[in-house]
Amino acid sequence: MKLDEIHSPNDIKRLSVDELPALCDELRAALLKKLAAHGGHIGPNLGMVEATVALHYVFDAPADKLVFDVSHQTYVHKMLTGRMEAFTDPAHYDDVTGYTNPGESPYDLFTLGHTSTSVSLATGLAKARDLRGDTENVVAVIGDGSLSGGQAFEGLDYGATLGSNFIVVVNDNDMSIAENHGSLYDNLRLLRETDGQAEPNYFKSLGYEYHYVAYGNDVVALVDAFRRVRGTHHPVVVHLATQKGKGYAPAEAHRERFHYGAPFDISTGEPLRIDTSEDYADITAEHLIEMMGADRTVTAITAGTPGVIGFDSDRRRVAGSQFVDVGIAEQQAVSLASGLAKGGAKPFFGVVSSFIQRAYDQLSQDVAINRSPITMGIFYGTMYGMTDVTHLGWFDIALISNIPGFVYLAPTCKEEYLAMLDWSMRQSEYPVAIRIPGGAVRVTGREFPADYSDLNRYCVTRCGSDVAIIAAGAFYQLGEQVADELRSRGQNPTLINPRYLSGLDAELLGSLEEHHRLVITLEDGILDGGFGEKIARFYGTSAMDVKCYGLRKEFADRYDYTELAHANRLEPKLIADDVVSLLCK
Amino acid sequence: MKLDEIHSPNDIKRLSVDELPALCDELRAALLKKLAAHGGHIGPNLGMVEATVALHYVFDAPADKLVFDVSHQTYVHKMLTGRMEAFTDPAHYDDVTGYTNPGESPYDLFTLGHTSTSVSLATGLAKARDLRGDTENVVAVIGDGSLSGGQAFEGLDYGATLGSNFIVVVNDNDMSIAENHGSLYDNLRLLRETDGQAEPNYFKSLGYEYHYVAYGNDVVALVDAFRRVRGTHHPVVVHLATQKGKGYAPAEAHRERFHYGAPFDISTGEPLRIDTSEDYADITAEHLIEMMGADRTVTAITAGTPGVIGFDSDRRRVAGSQFVDVGIAEQQAVSLASGLAKGGAKPFFGVVSSFIQRAYDQLSQDVAINRSPITMGIFYGTMYGMTDVTHLGWFDIALISNIPGFVYLAPTCKEEYLAMLDWSMRQSEYPVAIRIPGGAVRVTGREFPADYSDLNRYCVTRCGSDVAIIAAGAFYQLGEQVADELRSRGQNPTLINPRYLSGLDAELLGSLEEHHRLVITLEDGILDGGFGEKIARFYGTSAMDVKCYGLRKEFADRYDYTELAHANRLEPKLIADDVVSLLCK
Repeated sequence: MKLDEIHSPNDIKRLSVDELPALCDELRAALLKKLAAHGGHIGPNLGMVEATVALHYVFDAPADKLVFDVSHQTYVHKMLTGRMEAFTDPAHYDDVTGYTNPGESPYDLFTLGHTSTSVSLATGLAKARDLRGDTENVVAVIGDGSLSGGQAFEGLDYGATLGSNFIVVVNDNDMSIAENHGSLYDNLRLLRETDGQAEPNYFKSLGYEYHYVAYGNDVVALVDAFRRVRGTHHPVVVHLATQKGKGYAPAEAHRERFHYGAPFDISTGEPLRIDTSEDYADITAEHLIEMMGADRTVTAITAGTPGVIGFDSDRRRVAGSQFVDVGIAEQQAVSLASGLAKGGAKPFFGVVSSFIQRAYDQLSQDVAINRSPITMGIFYGTMYGMTDVTHLGWFDIALISNIPGFVYLAPTCKEEYLAMLDWSMRQSEYPVAIRIPGGAVRVTGREFPADYSDLNRYCVTRCGSDVAIIAAGAFYQLGEQVADELRSRGQNPTLINPRYLSGLDAELLGSLEEHHRLVITLEDGILDGGFGEKIARFYGTSAMDVKCYGLRKEFADRYDYTELAHANRLEPKLIADDVVSLLCK
Repeated sequence: MKLDEIHSPNDIKRLSVDELPALCDELRAALLKKLAAHGGHIGPNLGMVEATVALHYVFDAPADKLVFDVSHQTYVHKMLTGRMEAFTDPAHYDDVTGYTNPGESPYDLFTLGHTSTSVSLATGLAKARDLRGDTENVVAVIGDGSLSGGQAFEGLDYGATLGSNFIVVVNDNDMSIAENHGSLYDNLRLLRETDGQAEPNYFKSLGYEYHYVAYGNDVVALVDAFRRVRGTHHPVVVHLATQKGKGYAPAEAHRERFHYGAPFDISTGEPLRIDTSEDYADITAEHLIEMMGADRTVTAITAGTPGVIGFDSDRRRVAGSQFVDVGIAEQQAVSLASGLAKGGAKPFFGVVSSFIQRAYDQLSQDVAINRSPITMGIFYGTMYGMTDVTHLGWFDIALISNIPGFVYLAPTCKEEYLAMLDWSMRQSEYPVAIRIPGGAVRVTGREFPADYSDLNRYCVTRCGSDVAIIAAGAFYQLGEQVADELRSRGQNPTLINPRYLSGLDAELLGSLEEHHRLVITLEDGILDGGFGEKIARFYGTSAMDVKCYGLRKEFADRYDYTELAHANRLEPKLIADDVVSLLCK
C-alpha cells in the first residue's frame, strides 16, 4: 500500500499478514531516507520496523496501551499513527519530536526520554485498568540496553504480581548505545543461543511466562507471537532477537556509531559534515588515559554512554580494566565510584547532566555522607546542549550544589577544566563534581591555580566599582561581554569567576560592599535552587542590590538557543540595560 | 567465653566451631537485654547473630571487606569489633550509632542507612582491590527486603562481571519491614522450599555461583558455607534462610512490629510506653480509606514502609487492591503513580522525606514533564524527625520545589493538611506533593479553603507593618511565636502562611513593600536551594531586607532538636532579637 494512505493503525489492519513484509520494506526505505537527510536515532528505529508493524497489527491502540522505553525507537510507531508526513515529506520532518509525545497523538501515552521507566509506567496503566474493571492489553516495549537500569527490574518485579494482563516486549538487539555490560547480558545471550530454551532464565525467575522470537525482524513470526499473548491474563515476556540497524548495511556493521547520528550519505554511511573541532569528550578521555598510565588505580566510569567522555572503542581498548561501563545504571556508577575511592582508587565518573539526576540518593548517601573523594564530570549541563525536554541540562546546579560536602566546580574554559580535573583526581578529601562548560570548547591560554582545596575562594578577574558581575562556568564569557558592554557605556564593573557553585566566598562578598551597590549573578541553569539565590540570601539584609540571571523554572522542548536566551534576558545588551537602570534608581 | 573478653574478631577465632553456638546464645541474650531497654532494630539483629559470628569467624576483617546493606543489622558486628560495652553496659548504650560508622571503627567501611546500596559499594571495593593487585575477600551482606530496590539489581548485574572474588550473602528472613512484595520473592520462596535446588534461580540468571544454607541460624552450617566460598575467584551468592527475631518468641511471632521498636517489656514483648496521641500516619490512612470507599480508583502506595502512612495489616486488609506495596522501590512507586494517574486512577504515594530522594528522576521525568496528577505525602520532612545522618528530612524542599510543574504544599496543621489532601486527590491538573508537618499533630480547629488550584496564593493571617514573617508549614507555629514575641516588644508584625513551597506570590510580596522594610522567612529544612532563597531573590533589587531562617547546609548525626534549633537561631527570642536589631539599623 502507499504510505500516505496510512492514517492510523486501522489502515494496516486491512492488509493480510502476507502483505506486511512489503509494507515493512516501504516503511524502512522512507525511514532511511529521512534518517540520512535529518539524522536521529538510526539503529534503534531500523531494527524495530517489523516489531512496530506487528504490534499495531495485532493490538488495538490507543485502547490497548503501548509504552515504549526511552521512546527513541518510535519513528515507525509515529508513521503508523497519523504522522506519516513527518517522515515522508522533508518540509514536515520537524513536525514531530524524537520521542513519544502526548501533545502529538493519543497513541503516545507519555513523554519519555530516559531509560528503564516503561515497565513501571505500564504497571500503573495496568493497575488503573484493573481498578476500573476494564480489560485492554497493556504492553511495555523495552530494549535490552534499558534492562540494566534498576528501575526496569523494579517494574518487572512489581508487574508480575498484578495477576492480570501485562505484556513486556523485550527488543534484544544485543546492544546498548555501545556494547552491553552486565551479567544479565550473558543470560540474554544464552537464551538467544538456545532458542529461548535454556535455564536459568532471568524473566522466568521473576515470574513471567516466557516467549522467544528468534527472528525479531520477521514480521510474520512477530504477528504470530503477539497474537499468542494478546488477551493474556498473566505476566508475559516476549523476547525478540532483533538486528540493530536492520536493512542498512553500514548501520548493521557499525552499530555504536549508528545508534544516533547526524545526516549521512546514504550510499556510504559517511557523515555529511565532519566536525573536526575539539570537544570536551576527547579532551577528557585523552587526559584520563594519560593519568591511567601513571596510576593504575585511575578508573574512568560510564553508565552506558562511553562516547560522552570520549571513550570510543580504541580508547576503551587502551584503558583496559581502567575503563568501566556499568551499563545504563547511574546509581551503580556512583556507588561503584564511592567504593573505588574507599578502596584507595581514583574514580572519575563522566555523566550527562540530565542523567546524573537518576542517582541523587547515591550522591548524597553513598558519596557525600561518606566523604568519598570521587570526581564526577557533568557534561551538557548547559542551556546550549540537548534541547529535548527529557534531556535538559538545566537542573544539575540545584541538584548537586545543595548536597552538603559536595564541591561543585565550574571551570570557564579548557585550561581551567584541566587544572580542576588534575586537582580533583589528586586530592583525597572531597567528593568533587566538575561542570564541563557548555557550548564550544573555549581555549584561553590562561594559567589557572593547581590547588582548589581552599574551598569557595572566588577569583576577581577585573577590579571595578559600583557593579560586580559574578559569572559562573560557561557564562563567564557572557560576564566578560556584559563587562565590555558596560565599559562602553562608561561603567567600570568588577568581574568575578566564582569557580565554586557549592559555596559562598563570604569574605570577598562582604568586601564588595565597600565600593559596589549592585551584584549580578550569571549561571547556565535554572535560577530556582541555584547559585544566584545563595548570593541573594547572603546580601538579604545589606544595602547591596542583587539581580540573578539564569533560566526560569520551566520545561522547554526543542527550543532555540537564541530565543531562550532572549526570553531570559541572557544577552549582554539587555543585562547592561538592567544594570544601568538599577544603578540609576 | 565472657563477652567482655571479646575485643576484636581474633578473640572469637580462638574458639572451636563447637563453642560458637554457646557464644551466639550469650550474644543474643545481651543483645535482647539492650534492645528491650533501649529499643532499636530488633528482628533484623536477632536474626543475624549466627551469620555475623560466622562471618567474623571465617573472614579476616578488616583486611577482608564486609559491607552490610542498610547496616541496621550490625549490632552483633559491633559487639565483635571492639564495641561490646555499648551493648552490655547501659551507661554506654548510646556510644554507638544504629548503623555502621567508619568514625567508630575500622571494621565499618561506610555510613549506611538506605537500602540496596551494599552490593554496589562492594563492587567498588572489589574493583579497587583488583586494580591494586590485592586478594582480600569482598563480602556484601544484603537482606531479602533490600533486593527489591533497583540498585541491588544494578550491583548484582555489574558484580558478576568482575571476574574475581565477589561474595554476596543474602540474608533471607522472608520479610521486608512488613511482608515482601514482588515476584522475586516467589522465586526466593521456591528456592527455600526446594533446598535451593529449583530452577529458575534469580541469582544464577545473573551469573552467580549459588549456595543455599537452609538453616541460616545454625552457626556451624554457616561457618561451613562461608569456608567453602572464602577465597573464591568467582561471583558467589550464599543464600541464607534465617528467622527474623530469632530466639525471642514475641519477635518471631510479630515480625513487622518487632522490625524496629521502642523499649519493651522483655517478658511480654509489650512496649513500655504506649503513645496514644494522634499521628499523621493514622490520620492519612483513615482519610484515604474513606476516599477509597467512595472511589474505587483511589490507590494508596507505599515503597516497603506501610506504617509510615498508617496502613497496618488491618487497614491493608480493608483497602484490599486499593493498597499497593511495591517493596522498597521508590522509583517504581513514583512511576506506578504516574501510570495510575494517566490511566484515570487517583494515586497517593506516601513516603519518608529521606527516601523520596531515591526517585528524583522519576519525579521530574515520569511525573512533572508528563503533568501526571499524582499526590505525594512527604513524611518526616522536618528537623524534628529522624536524627540519624542517613535519615535526615531536611532536603526535600530543595529537591521537590525546584522541579518545574510540581506543586509543593506546606500545610500548617491537621485541618489544613486534610483540606489540601482532599483538593489534591480531587484535581487532575497538577502533580502535587504535600509536606506533612513535622513534630506532634497540631489541631487548630480552623477552617481552610477547599481549593488550591489558584497556585501560589499566600495567606496573610495577621496584618501588621514594618516586618512580615513568612512561616512555612510546621514552622508556621514558630512564626506565630516570633510574632507574639515581637508584639510583646512593641512591634506589629505581619504573619503569612505561604502554603506553597514551589512558587512565589509576586503580587502579595510586591504589596508588602508599601508598609514593610523587612521580610523574614522560616522553613523546616536547609536554606540552600530552599524556599527563603526564592524570596531573597525576589527582593534582590528592592529596598526590602530579607532574612532567611532554616538549617545550614550540613549533615548532622543523632543531634539534639533543641541544640540544632539554637545553633540555627530557630528560637522566637533569638529571631525577635534579630528583627529588632535589623529594624533599627
